[in-house]
Amino acid sequence: MTTPPSAAAGDGTNDHLVQSTDPDHPANLIPSLCAKFWTLGWVTGTGGGASIRNDDLVYIAPSGVQKELMKPSDIYVLSLAAQQSQSLHPRQRVYLRRPPTLKPSQCTPLFLAAFTKRGAGCCIHTHSHWAVLVTLLLEAHGSAEFRINNLEQIKGFGRGPGKAGNLGYHDTLVIPVIENTAHEEDLTEFLEEAMDRYPDAYAVLVRRHGVYVWGETVHKAKTQCESLDYLFQLAVEMKQLGLAWITDIAPTVPTRSAA
Amino acid sequence: MTTPPSAAAGDGTNDHLVQSTDPDHPANLIPSLCAKFWTLGWVTGTGGGASIRNDDLVYIAPSGVQKELMKPSDIYVLSLAAQQSQSLHPRQRVYLRRPPTLKPSQCTPLFLAAFTKRGAGCCIHTHSHWAVLVTLLLEAHGSAEFRINNLEQIKGFGRGPGKAGNLGYHDTLVIPVIENTAHEEDLTEFLEEAMDRYPDAYAVLVRRHGVYVWGETVHKAKTQCESLDYLFQLAVEMKQLGLAWITDIAPTVPTRSAA
Amino acid sequence: MTTPPSAAAGDGTNDHLVQSTDPDHPANLIPSLCAKFWTLGWVTGTGGGASIRNDDLVYIAPSGVQKELMKPSDIYVLSLAAQQSQSLHPRQRVYLRRPPTLKPSQCTPLFLAAFTKRGAGCCIHTHSHWAVLVTLLLEAHGSAEFRINNLEQIKGFGRGPGKAGNLGYHDTLVIPVIENTAHEEDLTEFLEEAMDRYPDAYAVLVRRHGVYVWGETVHKAKTQCESLDYLFQLAVEMKQLGLAWITDIAPTVPTRSAA
Amino acid sequence: MTTPPSAAAGDGTNDHLVQSTDPDHPANLIPSLCAKFWTLGWVTGTGGGASIRNDDLVYIAPSGVQKELMKPSDIYVLSLAAQQSQSLHPRQRVYLRRPPTLKPSQCTPLFLAAFTKRGAGCCIHTHSHWAVLVTLLLEAHGSAEFRINNLEQIKGFGRGPGKAGNLGYHDTLVIPVIENTAHEEDLTEFLEEAMDRYPDAYAVLVRRHGVYVWGETVHKAKTQCESLDYLFQLAVEMKQLGLAWITDIAPTVPTRSAA
Repeated sequence: MTTPPSAAAGDGTNDHLVQSTDPDHPANLIPSLCAKFWTLGWVTGTGGGASIRNDDLVYIAPSGVQKELMKPSDIYVLSLAAQQSQSLHPRQRVYLRRPPTLKPSQCTPLFLAAFTKRGAGCCIHTHSHWAVLVTLLLEAHGSAEFRINNLEQIKGFGRGPGKAGNLGYHDTLVIPVIENTAHEEDLTEFLEEAMDRYPDAYAVLVRRHGVYVWGETVHKAKTQCESLDYLFQLAVEMKQLGLAWITDIAPTVPTRSAA
Repeated sequence: MTTPPSAAAGDGTNDHLVQSTDPDHPANLIPSLCAKFWTLGWVTGTGGGASIRNDDLVYIAPSGVQKELMKPSDIYVLSLAAQQSQSLHPRQRVYLRRPPTLKPSQCTPLFLAAFTKRGAGCCIHTHSHWAVLVTLLLEAHGSAEFRINNLEQIKGFGRGPGKAGNLGYHDTLVIPVIENTAHEEDLTEFLEEAMDRYPDAYAVLVRRHGVYVWGETVHKAKTQCESLDYLFQLAVEMKQLGLAWITDIAPTVPTRSAA
Repeated sequence: MTTPPSAAAGDGTNDHLVQSTDPDHPANLIPSLCAKFWTLGWVTGTGGGASIRNDDLVYIAPSGVQKELMKPSDIYVLSLAAQQSQSLHPRQRVYLRRPPTLKPSQCTPLFLAAFTKRGAGCCIHTHSHWAVLVTLLLEAHGSAEFRINNLEQIKGFGRGPGKAGNLGYHDTLVIPVIENTAHEEDLTEFLEEAMDRYPDAYAVLVRRHGVYVWGETVHKAKTQCESLDYLFQLAVEMKQLGLAWITDIAPTVPTRSAA
Repeated sequence: MTTPPSAAAGDGTNDHLVQSTDPDHPANLIPSLCAKFWTLGWVTGTGGGASIRNDDLVYIAPSGVQKELMKPSDIYVLSLAAQQSQSLHPRQRVYLRRPPTLKPSQCTPLFLAAFTKRGAGCCIHTHSHWAVLVTLLLEAHGSAEFRINNLEQIKGFGRGPGKAGNLGYHDTLVIPVIENTAHEEDLTEFLEEAMDRYPDAYAVLVRRHGVYVWGETVHKAKTQCESLDYLFQLAVEMKQLGLAWITDIAPTVPTRSAA
């Protein structure tokens, strides 16, 4: 990870950027995470993806690859700083390293938004059917916001960038929903807009599509994504059982001074 | 794969056709795919199957084998051209290579239909209970067509043989349903008829039975099969939640020139 | 498997009966099957079990072992002929080989019933919650018989001992339900009674408990058990969706002479 | 396990307490159990945890670790006797061995309660969504007790500490529910209170949070936790199907003297 890229070219050079014996190197971690996500039903049929940022280097899973079969050599690498100084048009995007036969992910500008606007270290995109069902249930009520409270798993989310600690049990987790667009890259402006309106959110749902989840580290992005999927599943099952997502519950106060 | 078969016999010769150290050789790939499908609940109790075509050679999983335990030596091989020049009666089918103790799959003529009528490179047959439930829900409304639209996963399907690109988010995915027959081989004419009536379809549902899915390559057949199963599951869950499969949703138009 | 047991003792001798390098030896196969069944949710919390008969030798999983952790050395072995000539009282049962610290399975007399009354080669007992839910749904209608027809997976069952071939698509699969007893061994007489009344059945459901499934071979017992669990799951989901288990569907007749 | 800790310090010494080649050593067993629990959906997003007691030594999974990735070196060790003689305030808790960069689990005082009040050898905490759904269904009826009877899997539970044998098929399994608190450690007094009121219970549900399950051994804690999760799932599905958790069923009496 200490070797700087020798040239800003997309000509198959810089393969060393995806070669490492460290299982935690982004080029190894993205495939192992994607294989895990495949077993969870998050990246079925090549849907979904993941990206890791390491300082200025951004590693991205390619488009159209069976996620449980991905290899380190399939990974794209680009410079975050270079993206910001260039036109954002995806056709002109410059990669430090690109696999010879694959196509870049349409999620690329959305992952970059999490890195530039939030300083995230990792961003995960799933097509989890629990996420999709939640957006459909909200659509039926004309809502563009998922809200749920009084569940322990809510503690799995940070309070927001720059804020200390995590949400509490009684807090309301709020995830904005944006409408899906015909082309995935066109989601970018709406995702960025939602990030502006919900400065503390670590995720954005995409109607009839899935969810984008990020975090300061791979650990945080992955565990927040798991916690969110757990809550989406619970929310769908609660709806089937006629149970409300938002409740008013008085705190239970301990009587001991030091418990 | 370059060694031509020496004789069109079914006497246990030509074992070299199923012997390779390449994990992507059809004789190795069919068992590994079937083991994966078993964990997905697609080929429970020896149901379902898969076939791969490599130019003129067709590799087929046998009948009655536990799909998660299949071995390369269990695979049948036949010449596609030879099938077309011969009587189609399955009893008279000639195999280039056959396993000594197994029976050929009753799916054989259905797989061949995908290869001859569509030029497919791979065909997968699952008994996924999501597929079966979709056919039952459609039956309750007297319908022989699964239609769903405005879901991102629909992009996982090609527009049709010879057409460029994939379906879009707002497009309607249409999968015909044929009625099941007492003998699986008798499905062939109905499958072929459905292929004629739905020239762009990559799959045909079989009422109370399952689904046949194909693609130009193993990759495309497998990822289309995954995407379809995802949509079947979603459709059943949408029905349980009172949500419609077909909706009228206005496109969300981006405001930026280059997003 | 050709070495005859040297003495009908339960004193830790005859360990050779469970020592083999063949993965298909019953003492190896029972643990690998049970580990697989654990992942399917069939033998949760030490519930359920399996037994294989090889001529006169019967191999049985012990009681109270975590099914995904079972070892060949945990397996009991007894002589089927010796059981029949002895008192059936379980306290007096003589084992050819017994593990030093475990307890025999309460399922033992039920497995033996499948071997003696049906000549089965393998019997599987699961606590699958799909099986339990089916018995509960039937109980609500005062029924002691699971009946379902017109589903392809029904073909996964033989027509009955001594009968050629399997059930057809339009046939009705009938599985008797017996009431649960406080002590599992007390189920034996009711299981045997059900076997007498349903001579073609390869399985008996136990109300609020699970299912016993057998077959002439391990392969048949295992694949029939999978097919049955698939149908139980489908039946529960059909009930949730308001779909009937028994329907009257006219056969679809092919028009081609040889398809 | 026979080496006594040399000093009651939390300074990174005593690493030998978590180093063993025995897969059943608590420092190895906690990670392998937690990895298994992750696949069951019990410890999603770093939620949940597990602790094993070996005489006076207590081994505890740390806070905030991805449960499927835990390593023996992540395990905390403390002396149970030392805890009881010290202030219970968690900030002052003394560890025999602590990992250099992790935080102790907030579950620690709850695990200790199972060890001190019940003499348990293992305690498991899951966030299983089945457990959470059961507490939500009970909440809708103002209930703080899960009761279910006449199910075979109930036999998976002991009758209570110091009592011989397990619950029977017709017995009612009773699991108390305590209200969740903002801080997990504050649950301790309510958990202990529930233990006092339900002296035979091996588990306590926590509203909108999950469940704590313990047992005299790792085997018993783990299999009771599995049996309980099975029953929670069944209970939710029974509710969806309109089936009652408590029923009045007359015992089925065998007619044979020795079955």
